[in-house]
Amino acid sequence: MNRIITIGREFGSGGREVGKRLAEKLGFAYYDKEIIEEISKRTNLATDYVKQIVEKRPIVYYPITIGMTLHNDYSDVMISNQTSIISELSNTLNDMADTSDCVIVGRCADSLLRNKKPLRIFVYGELEDKIARCRLKAPENENLSDKELVKMLTKVDKNRAKYYENMTGNRWGAKENYDLCINTSSIDIKDACSMIAALVEGK
Amino acid sequence: MNRIITIGREFGSGGREVGKRLAEKLGFAYYDKEIIEEISKRTNLATDYVKQIVEKRPIVYYPITIGMTLHNDYSDVMISNQTSIISELSNTLNDMADTSDCVIVGRCADSLLRNKKPLRIFVYGELEDKIARCRLKAPENENLSDKELVKMLTKVDKNRAKYYENMTGNRWGAKENYDLCINTSSIDIKDACSMIAALVEGK
Repeated sequence: MNRIITIGREFGSGGREVGKRLAEKLGFAYYDKEIIEEISKRTNLATDYVKQIVEKRPIVYYPITIGMTLHNDYSDVMISNQTSIISELSNTLNDMADTSDCVIVGRCADSLLRNKKPLRIFVYGELEDKIARCRLKAPENENLSDKELVKMLTKVDKNRAKYYENMTGNRWGAKENYDLCINTSSIDIKDACSMIAALVEGK
Repeated sequence: MNRIITIGREFGSGGREVGKRLAEKLGFAYYDKEIIEEISKRTNLATDYVKQIVEKRPIVYYPITIGMTLHNDYSDVMISNQTSIISELSNTLNDMADTSDCVIVGRCADSLLRNKKPLRIFVYGELEDKIARCRLKAPENENLSDKELVKMLTKVDKNRAKYYENMTGNRWGAKENYDLCINTSSIDIKDACSMIAALVEGK
C-alpha cells in the first residue's frame, strides 16, 4: 500500500510549506491545488466554483424550502453539483492515493482516506507568528492592517473548521483526529520535515 | 543551555515509556518519581503527602472559612505545606534542568520551566488502546473490569487536568500549550522516540 501523509493546517502556520518540503524530501507526489483542478476536469464545473464548494462553503444537505415549494430547479442543480463535487473529491483523493506515495494538503483527506491509514498531521501556530508568516508571503501591493489580517486568518480557519465538521462529523484541529500535531511557532519547518521523514522512513 | 524535554501524557498512553526510552536514547537524565522524592527530602514532608499535593489535589488558594473564623491553625499549616511543596516543585525542576540535559515527565514542567524553552510534548491515545496498555502493565492480582478501568483512567486524567489548570491557568492537553502532540494509538512508541530524537539532535 502506498504511504500517504495528510496535512491539516491553520492558515499562516506554514502547513503547506511543510507539505511541499516533505514531499520533496521523501520523493512523494504532492497534492494541494491540483485536487481542485482535477475535480473541475472530472465534473466539468468551473475551478472557482469547485474551490468555493471544497474550501469555503459548508454543504447544506437538508431540503431548501422557498415559499411553499420544497425545492425548485435552481436548488436541484445546486445540490446536484455539490454532490458531484463531494463525490469527486473522494474519488480524486482515492485515485491520487492509489497512484503513488503522496502528501495531500487539506480537503479533509485525513478523514476521506481513513481506510488507507494515512499519517494524519495537523500544523498550527501562535497568532503572532501566523501574522508574521502571512506578511512575509503577502504580495507587495497588499496593505492589510494587523486587525484586518487577524480577521482574515480567523475567517479562513472558521470556514475550514465548518467545512471539516460538515464533511467528517469531527472537530477540525482537535488532536484526537490526528496522529501528530506540530506547533510551528516553536518547531522550525525544516526540522519538522526532517522529523516526519525520520518517522515515515522508520529511521 | 541544557536541552529539556517535558512530557505531558494521558494515563495509559505510554507517555512515561516515551520519556524513559527517549532519555536512554539521547543519554539525557530522566525525572519522574524522582521529583516527588526530592521535594520530600527538601520539605521534610512524607513522600505520599507530597505526591498527593503534586499529583492529585487541586491547590486551594482562597482563604478557608470554618464557622465564623477565617482560618484556623490546621488550615494555616495545610496552606503553608502546600505552598512549600509548590515552591519546591518549581525549585527542584529548575535545579534538575540546570544540572544536565533531561527528560521530565508530568508535574507541569512544560509551564514551570517555560523560561528555559523546553521541548513540550504531549502524548495521547484512543481509549481502547489506553485500556489495553493498562491491562498489559497491571499487576497480576489486579482484576478491574473494563468499566472500572475506564473510571480509573478518567479520574486520573481529570485530576491531572484540574491540577494543571490550577497551576498554570492553561488547559491540560490543549495542543496550543505544547510543541508536539503524539497519538500513540497510531504511532509506535519506539518510532515516536526515534522521531523526537531526530528533532532534538537536528538530524
